[in-house]
Amino acid sequence: MNVEIINIGDELLIGQVVNTNAAWMAEQLSLSGFSVIQVSVIKDERAHILNALAEAEKRAPIVLVSGGIGPTLDDITKQTLCEYFNTSLVFSEDAYHDVEAIFARRGYKVTELNRQQAELPESCTEIPNKLGTARGMWFEKERHGEGKTIFVSMPGVPFEMKAMMTDSVIPALKETFSTPFIYHKTILTQGVGESFLAAQIEEWEKALPPSIKLAYLPQPGIVRLRLTGTAPNEQLIRNEVDAEVARLYQLIPEYIFGEDEDTLELVVGEILRKKGATLAAAESCTGGYIAHLITSIPGSSDYFKGSIVAYSNEAKINLLNITEESILNYGAVSKQVVEQMAASARIKFYSHFAIATSGIAGPTGGTETKPVGTVWIAIATPDEVLSQRFLFGDSRERNIRRAALQALAMLRKEIAR
Amino acid sequence: MNVEIINIGDELLIGQVVNTNAAWMAEQLSLSGFSVIQVSVIKDERAHILNALAEAEKRAPIVLVSGGIGPTLDDITKQTLCEYFNTSLVFSEDAYHDVEAIFARRGYKVTELNRQQAELPESCTEIPNKLGTARGMWFEKERHGEGKTIFVSMPGVPFEMKAMMTDSVIPALKETFSTPFIYHKTILTQGVGESFLAAQIEEWEKALPPSIKLAYLPQPGIVRLRLTGTAPNEQLIRNEVDAEVARLYQLIPEYIFGEDEDTLELVVGEILRKKGATLAAAESCTGGYIAHLITSIPGSSDYFKGSIVAYSNEAKINLLNITEESILNYGAVSKQVVEQMAASARIKFYSHFAIATSGIAGPTGGTETKPVGTVWIAIATPDEVLSQRFLFGDSRERNIRRAALQALAMLRKEIAR
Repeated sequence: MNVEIINIGDELLIGQVVNTNAAWMAEQLSLSGFSVIQVSVIKDERAHILNALAEAEKRAPIVLVSGGIGPTLDDITKQTLCEYFNTSLVFSEDAYHDVEAIFARRGYKVTELNRQQAELPESCTEIPNKLGTARGMWFEKERHGEGKTIFVSMPGVPFEMKAMMTDSVIPALKETFSTPFIYHKTILTQGVGESFLAAQIEEWEKALPPSIKLAYLPQPGIVRLRLTGTAPNEQLIRNEVDAEVARLYQLIPEYIFGEDEDTLELVVGEILRKKGATLAAAESCTGGYIAHLITSIPGSSDYFKGSIVAYSNEAKINLLNITEESILNYGAVSKQVVEQMAASARIKFYSHFAIATSGIAGPTGGTETKPVGTVWIAIATPDEVLSQRFLFGDSRERNIRRAALQALAMLRKEIAR
Repeated sequence: MNVEIINIGDELLIGQVVNTNAAWMAEQLSLSGFSVIQVSVIKDERAHILNALAEAEKRAPIVLVSGGIGPTLDDITKQTLCEYFNTSLVFSEDAYHDVEAIFARRGYKVTELNRQQAELPESCTEIPNKLGTARGMWFEKERHGEGKTIFVSMPGVPFEMKAMMTDSVIPALKETFSTPFIYHKTILTQGVGESFLAAQIEEWEKALPPSIKLAYLPQPGIVRLRLTGTAPNEQLIRNEVDAEVARLYQLIPEYIFGEDEDTLELVVGEILRKKGATLAAAESCTGGYIAHLITSIPGSSDYFKGSIVAYSNEAKINLLNITEESILNYGAVSKQVVEQMAASARIKFYSHFAIATSGIAGPTGGTETKPVGTVWIAIATPDEVLSQRFLFGDSRERNIRRAALQALAMLRKEIAR
């Protein structure tokens, strides 16, 4: 079932914003058995929008539009949709009620500009937006003797569009069109690069049945392996995919940390919660990023006590009881210091476990023996303190991310025992 | 001068790859005075390519195509270009020489597949590719009495395409077309929603000269205002845009924190560095995210001492000297506690300034008097401790981000004095 995506927004056409909306929409549609055949990014202009709608309608029975329906003056998409579908704006009590509620929660009154967001094309079916003031619009248009074309207009704000797609648009499309059964399973690995992983699972990959496709989805520090099975029969393909996943677990157990929407911070949190154990951290090169990852999980205050981000040697000495001697003898980026940091964090926060990091994130600060990307990670458990040295790359952002993920992966192995 | 971009590649249409090529091309073109009016991402299929070329030709005198000309079997772009331009492939000695040289550098012999890369459409002008084996192709086609349309086909590999655009395509386009001068200026605001901002600057916006366009680019916690001026004369339009920016600064000084590529963490860091001042933090609800933002800036160790992420009351008491009494009497999310946290962080880290946050990020933990989204932020300066209460929204992720940005914005005002 073919889909066209139209993204409206001048910011995409001057390159100030990368079109991540299109990639996300295409992925979600593809995971639901729909096939995106064209993405068109166009200007927020009447003639341009009319032309894009007409062109897309020629090629696909589903046309998804995002962008151009915010509260500001430069948005003319809604008027143009009315023109295309030969309808006019009417005031929607329901939509106004939502706008009012959102403003009330924020402690504000509705402005005239925002009041206009409750004006919607008469012929559309409104789609609720629980995260913003612009509702989505679902239009249906007859094709010459070939059924109908569905048009959906959504906000361009990524989190509003995503919630609307997930909660309303994709379920409604699946109800309207019959799609083959597709079953996805994503296996998450950490601590191994894409090409090394590929070499290790080559035989397994070659032996996959034709109904199952494998995709490598690399991110900094993580490689996701997505298996996609397609079949008319749900149970059959579930069994086939699950059997291949079981083989994969036997093949590379040391790299797998979770499945599908799991993250390392979520998996670690679940194990800690289940064991009734608590965690603390002492961060130097990760600069608070480990604490941020852990506390991004709702309810993490149940097991996370906190972190001391000791970004200066002074802070390491005063707040983590690192001795000046250790720093002078071994340097702040050393096995000795990182192990002391982990042990101190565990004591200071009265936690069962603690993580510590010390490294050179870059781009400057590297030396011949400790180049940029050098990171020491330590884990303190009730019984011992373990540490390991890593050499990541040149990019500061990626070094911080990879060090944090590696620390969580090391912790996971210790707490899972 | 209008340009259309066509990106060919199935990987873009299943969402496996984000289309960063289009953003980069659009930005470079826009900076050179060209105006991208549409980006189309299409499948690597004959009929689809022919249709996209014909549609683009109707709208713009310049059509830039990337992707679809690699060495693999599934690339049919080159044959389709021949069909569209009514020409045929011929063997190019020059191109073959380049392919041979590249393979020799890598220590390989030319394969049959790669030999085909030296076959190019007879009517095109070849564009050298110093980084890969696929040459670019420049076609010209007469328009009915309106001059000619330029088509350029380039590889989809980002670094090959970028080098070709910079070294050959943009200079050749500038030689072929005379372009107006375009000047962009983006003003960054924080602490005000898009619609409130729009209401506050409505008069100013309406009075903008027709040569200047305004775009609202909202992100969580931040709204960017982009002014784009177009004119034949560079100095004239720079002056016009700068004058409007100056008016904007007078209109909403309390919301503006920077321009163009600035971020709050960068701006704050620059002020601290200039003043020789240092910073620390004590974070509860932001959970290390403030420290992470600050330490994402290279060289931040020069002014950032660290943060105590006190995620439990116990940690607030033990590590930040908050009294049990304060927590019992006022609660951890209170003016009293957050001010004590900021004051303590300043002392513990021996810093000039300190930020503290305490709030309810959600989704649980809210009460009637302190609903989810309630955040207290304090700033300790050498002279005093200031604090303010905020009520953000329901989303944990956004509450953490907005609280951190708000804290940095409050700090900026104090250190900029």
